[in-house]
Amino acid sequence: MTASLTEVPTAQDIKAAAQRIAPYINRTPSFSSLRFNELACGEYLLKGEHLQLTGAFKARGAMNAILVHQSKALSSGVITHSSGNHGAALAWAASQVGAKAYIIMPSNAPKSKIASVRHYGGVITFCEPTLEARETTATRIQKETSAYLIHPYDDYDIIAGQATATYELLKDNPEIEHLFVPVGGGGLLSGAALANYYFGNAKLYGCEPELARDAYDGFVSGKRVLVKNSETIADGLKTSLGKKNFPIIKSHVNQIILLTEKEIETGWHICLETTKQFIEPSAATGVAAALKMKTKGVCGILLCGGNMDVRKFTLR
Amino acid sequence: MTASLTEVPTAQDIKAAAQRIAPYINRTPSFSSLRFNELACGEYLLKGEHLQLTGAFKARGAMNAILVHQSKALSSGVITHSSGNHGAALAWAASQVGAKAYIIMPSNAPKSKIASVRHYGGVITFCEPTLEARETTATRIQKETSAYLIHPYDDYDIIAGQATATYELLKDNPEIEHLFVPVGGGGLLSGAALANYYFGNAKLYGCEPELARDAYDGFVSGKRVLVKNSETIADGLKTSLGKKNFPIIKSHVNQIILLTEKEIETGWHICLETTKQFIEPSAATGVAAALKMKTKGVCGILLCGGNMDVRKFTLR
Repeated sequence: MTASLTEVPTAQDIKAAAQRIAPYINRTPSFSSLRFNELACGEYLLKGEHLQLTGAFKARGAMNAILVHQSKALSSGVITHSSGNHGAALAWAASQVGAKAYIIMPSNAPKSKIASVRHYGGVITFCEPTLEARETTATRIQKETSAYLIHPYDDYDIIAGQATATYELLKDNPEIEHLFVPVGGGGLLSGAALANYYFGNAKLYGCEPELARDAYDGFVSGKRVLVKNSETIADGLKTSLGKKNFPIIKSHVNQIILLTEKEIETGWHICLETTKQFIEPSAATGVAAALKMKTKGVCGILLCGGNMDVRKFTLR
Repeated sequence: MTASLTEVPTAQDIKAAAQRIAPYINRTPSFSSLRFNELACGEYLLKGEHLQLTGAFKARGAMNAILVHQSKALSSGVITHSSGNHGAALAWAASQVGAKAYIIMPSNAPKSKIASVRHYGGVITFCEPTLEARETTATRIQKETSAYLIHPYDDYDIIAGQATATYELLKDNPEIEHLFVPVGGGGLLSGAALANYYFGNAKLYGCEPELARDAYDGFVSGKRVLVKNSETIADGLKTSLGKKNFPIIKSHVNQIILLTEKEIETGWHICLETTKQFIEPSAATGVAAALKMKTKGVCGILLCGGNMDVRKFTLR
């Protein structure tokens, strides 16, 4: 029986998570492009978590949490609230062990993300698109079902799972000097911060939309702040940093880089043009930050996901 | 000194081309997706020539032709006419050996393709967007410069080079039973036909837009026909089959599958959604044909390229 983490994950916890989830997840490839290197003035490796199962890194944390809480998941299911990628990932991870997953989603979630949760057998309840409504609805459904709540990011087992993306990248490429990671709730970034602290030596940059700048403001002021109803195109990054994520990020991240909507869109265009990898806008913040910073040297970017409504793009 | 091919390439010619170009080109990966397999009812390998250098398979044929004609290329340059991908590929291939490349492009070629030719140092002359205007302009510039003409597809050295894409795919995956390949001028498809005849055993399908259906009509009637001023969104497939390509295709292709514009667009959407690979509309014909045929078994699709104007896609 594996115990749930109640403290900041150690190096051993991250290694254990990597081993635990390895039979279920994709060891994702990294991409490079000579043209992108020219534009961003460095040697870039773009870690393709858009090719992770369920189309985002979220499969890592969800699978880790499900395996840690497997007996609870099997007896009364799991529940979460999510703008989409974590919901799909949890539904998928639960299905891997035969457990039920209840997913609370904002009513304005992208159609493709709703379809994806359904595809993996998740039971969806819609709510208003605010963090408060999500949490209230989750609590209500949780009481009705006794399902076990797995938070999208504010959870040490989730953080240990997300850390495995950076752990893989740094294990394969220990020469990485600069690392660009998108930040929303902070699951991926706090995981990256720990993996880089234990196993790497890169300067670590959190990449955040200006329209959802709680990580930047919290990082500068030293106090966690909340963002409300952000309208950024990077729909996966609208959430505020979690309580468990913030101190890890404060301690082990070098800088938060703010990106305008225009910079995010340009990063997305340049990623399509140079790497031919189809990523979601949230992932484009990492690309945009690299293009903005031009840090030189060997650099990594975590392409966090590739789920978006593609039908709005027409060829005519 | 390597002699230029004057006959249909043999198995040995294709192997020699593969060996000749190997130091210059990418051995491209194949992609798979459980979701795509469900939708297309088979086990699919999508060979990623959009990740080839210059963003398309055309780098193979161009590099082969340049290496075969290296001394002529170095003395007075090379010339070609192209809707884009062959032009960029020839400019790139010429630059690899330090030769000059003159590229005739239709005035309505996508901006990204024009930029790409320029990026590799090609000297562009624009002409009216008809096959006739392209050939007349090419002849004129050729006379002025004495550059050596390398046709985009109607050339055995080009065919042998393009054949290496299918040769690689079949060498790595000899179990492939069905193979879907886009057809425009027929360079890729005639190469695939020969590679599959010598090294494989797949049923081979040429995938063609209904709006540029010369291959279909020629295949059915047994006589090569020409298509004029096609308006298909698959801009790389507007050309008619070449004289050297047609008989090879007639002999060694099982069927030409026609795709409507809508089917091509849906194929493009499904490729983005399921594989996260950003391909150009021409490549989507192969995807669309697979989704239409649902052949079952182990199947291959040649994703022929990934070059298109991405700036028209906005995230808001």
